[in-house]
Amino acid sequence: MRTQVAIVGAGPAGMLLSQLLHLQGIDSVVLERRSREYVQQRVRAGVLEQGTVDVLREADVADRLEKQGHPHHGVNVQFDGDRLRIPLSELTGGRSITVYGQQEVVKDLAERRERDGGRVYYEVPDVTVEGVETEKPVVRFTSEGRVRELHCDYVAGCDGFHGVSRTTIPEKERTTYERVYPFGWLGILAEVEPSSEELIYSNHPNGFALHSLRSSTLSRLYLQCDPGESIEQWPDELIWEELQTRLGTSDWKLREGPIIDKNITALRSFVSEPMRYGRLFLAGDSAHIVPPTGAKGLNLAVADVDRLARSLTDYYHHGSTTGLETYSEECLRRVWRVQHFSWWMTSLTHRFDGPDAAYDRRLQRSQFDYLRSSTAAATTLAENYVGLAAV
Amino acid sequence: MRTQVAIVGAGPAGMLLSQLLHLQGIDSVVLERRSREYVQQRVRAGVLEQGTVDVLREADVADRLEKQGHPHHGVNVQFDGDRLRIPLSELTGGRSITVYGQQEVVKDLAERRERDGGRVYYEVPDVTVEGVETEKPVVRFTSEGRVRELHCDYVAGCDGFHGVSRTTIPEKERTTYERVYPFGWLGILAEVEPSSEELIYSNHPNGFALHSLRSSTLSRLYLQCDPGESIEQWPDELIWEELQTRLGTSDWKLREGPIIDKNITALRSFVSEPMRYGRLFLAGDSAHIVPPTGAKGLNLAVADVDRLARSLTDYYHHGSTTGLETYSEECLRRVWRVQHFSWWMTSLTHRFDGPDAAYDRRLQRSQFDYLRSSTAAATTLAENYVGLAAV
Repeated sequence: MRTQVAIVGAGPAGMLLSQLLHLQGIDSVVLERRSREYVQQRVRAGVLEQGTVDVLREADVADRLEKQGHPHHGVNVQFDGDRLRIPLSELTGGRSITVYGQQEVVKDLAERRERDGGRVYYEVPDVTVEGVETEKPVVRFTSEGRVRELHCDYVAGCDGFHGVSRTTIPEKERTTYERVYPFGWLGILAEVEPSSEELIYSNHPNGFALHSLRSSTLSRLYLQCDPGESIEQWPDELIWEELQTRLGTSDWKLREGPIIDKNITALRSFVSEPMRYGRLFLAGDSAHIVPPTGAKGLNLAVADVDRLARSLTDYYHHGSTTGLETYSEECLRRVWRVQHFSWWMTSLTHRFDGPDAAYDRRLQRSQFDYLRSSTAAATTLAENYVGLAAV
Repeated sequence: MRTQVAIVGAGPAGMLLSQLLHLQGIDSVVLERRSREYVQQRVRAGVLEQGTVDVLREADVADRLEKQGHPHHGVNVQFDGDRLRIPLSELTGGRSITVYGQQEVVKDLAERRERDGGRVYYEVPDVTVEGVETEKPVVRFTSEGRVRELHCDYVAGCDGFHGVSRTTIPEKERTTYERVYPFGWLGILAEVEPSSEELIYSNHPNGFALHSLRSSTLSRLYLQCDPGESIEQWPDELIWEELQTRLGTSDWKLREGPIIDKNITALRSFVSEPMRYGRLFLAGDSAHIVPPTGAKGLNLAVADVDRLARSLTDYYHHGSTTGLETYSEECLRRVWRVQHFSWWMTSLTHRFDGPDAAYDRRLQRSQFDYLRSSTAAATTLAENYVGLAAV
């Protein structure tokens, strides 16, 4: 079997790349270890930057997003019950974010690729990537009991943090940068009308809480928790009580409803450099993870893929390898900007324990006050949140 | 002996307060444990915010400052040899900083107070402050072998971090917020024309370095060092070598000259709350210490004293105690803004070791790049550096 670009992973990064290449007449094959149902049902991020929406529009998969997505022109930051709205659009020349679930993006892409006859192999768990240092990479996998060989020009590693692509790069050729946070997020999906039209990031003495939403009938809510806690330690009543405490203000109350999904995830900052090794290109979570506080994971993956698609197009249409050669360096500039922003949003809004905790909490308060008093400070939050056009 | 306001400490805070009160016809007595020569020769900060210059002008002690001070309209930040000028005035509606040594400010104030017959007692090491919870505070001290009692309405504690004023407040009434940094600053004064007209804060893999200046013939230079190191471990040649390495760029070299002063100081962030206890008001270093990276110590002391002088004037002229009652809260807002800025400038520009060091250095780099690419980011540095008008 042969293709131009072998894509490992059918999450948003892999499927979007396949679609963008298809529109340029470049052939690809997508390999995914999970089932299609699994991939499309994973509840993940739901905040799309303006630039992400632009790329999805360019990829011609934005019809449903445009109908069902909710544009937001502001976001709220709260400290000790004191709420501050950051007017995103006002501070960024009219840019905004759109609330639309990641799994919806994946669905839209999968349907579109299917309609166009795209080759996507689900449930192929044993993918191996070989020969990326040569001019003839080969991807091997088993499908329907048959071992297959996929010959290609390039391999795109879009298979996430736990995928095989990154580890295909010899260890001595990679540098890992990492930070683990001493807390996790307990996330719930609740069948109740959102209590606020815009997101609320709250820093309460008990810890962080986030009010987000998926639609006019689905609220998405998070609590900072111990990363070692199990979900059984959090009965629904306790979750609501804690959400009310951490998100409440004197004149605002959270609406409650049936919880239909709950889980705990650890927070991590991670970057693996470089993002290119020979003819293998990493994109999205396979190369970098950010804590979810800035809602950047998906957006960063889309930025990688957009650049990779352009670079491959430049190569196939014009014979230029410049984009491919500078891919890693150019992506990493944005990656580190977003790493910093996500770390900063996390640092500002979470409870930290330890010897410097009291001092650090006062620093958090002073930053919150500064966001209120300084247009420049509020603009740094806003422009990173909606996504920087150029980094 | 009696006065309206007893002032402990004849550094810039105490002397400025005495002068500001004098201009309002309010009597004060200043008590200082050190000699006048000692106080005036301490080499300390040398960067005055616009607001500080304004207060000194209002205090009518700015004649020499206006002649000899150097206004700066920009400041440089450097990372791995890559230098970026932050155009302070351009980003802050024309505000600037003025380079003029703290010891010169103290000299100007002492001379002025002397001319006006101000009562300042130097070399009184045994000051005790009593009865500040009552309406009749008493300050006791020994001068020329005689024990004296100074009766007053109010006491201003301007006696620095090691002074007696703060510890006069019962321990259970105070909360201390603190952070100690794992490094110190080796500072030198060198008889050589400054190599740059504006300051340079440099982050080099070897550690932080700062190029500052006192006059057209005196350079002030700093190196990040181990806080436990002794100055004997740093012969002059080693200092210059390290300064050249850390400050140099491909097209810029540091001028060298005779070192006439060198010392090592630890870096510390410290706040004691509240800043008022009964009739005792703390101002400057007695209540808070910042690492010197943002050049804020003196400026913050001046902001405290300015507010205290206004509050006392309101009381003596109009019988209003509002300013005195809100003094602590109002000062602390600025104190914490400055604590944050000083911590941030320190975090951005120093070398940190430990498990997250590699990740953190990349974050520093991304922040440096962000200062270059974002006007909002550069403005947050600039507006804090020149001093925020309102906090």
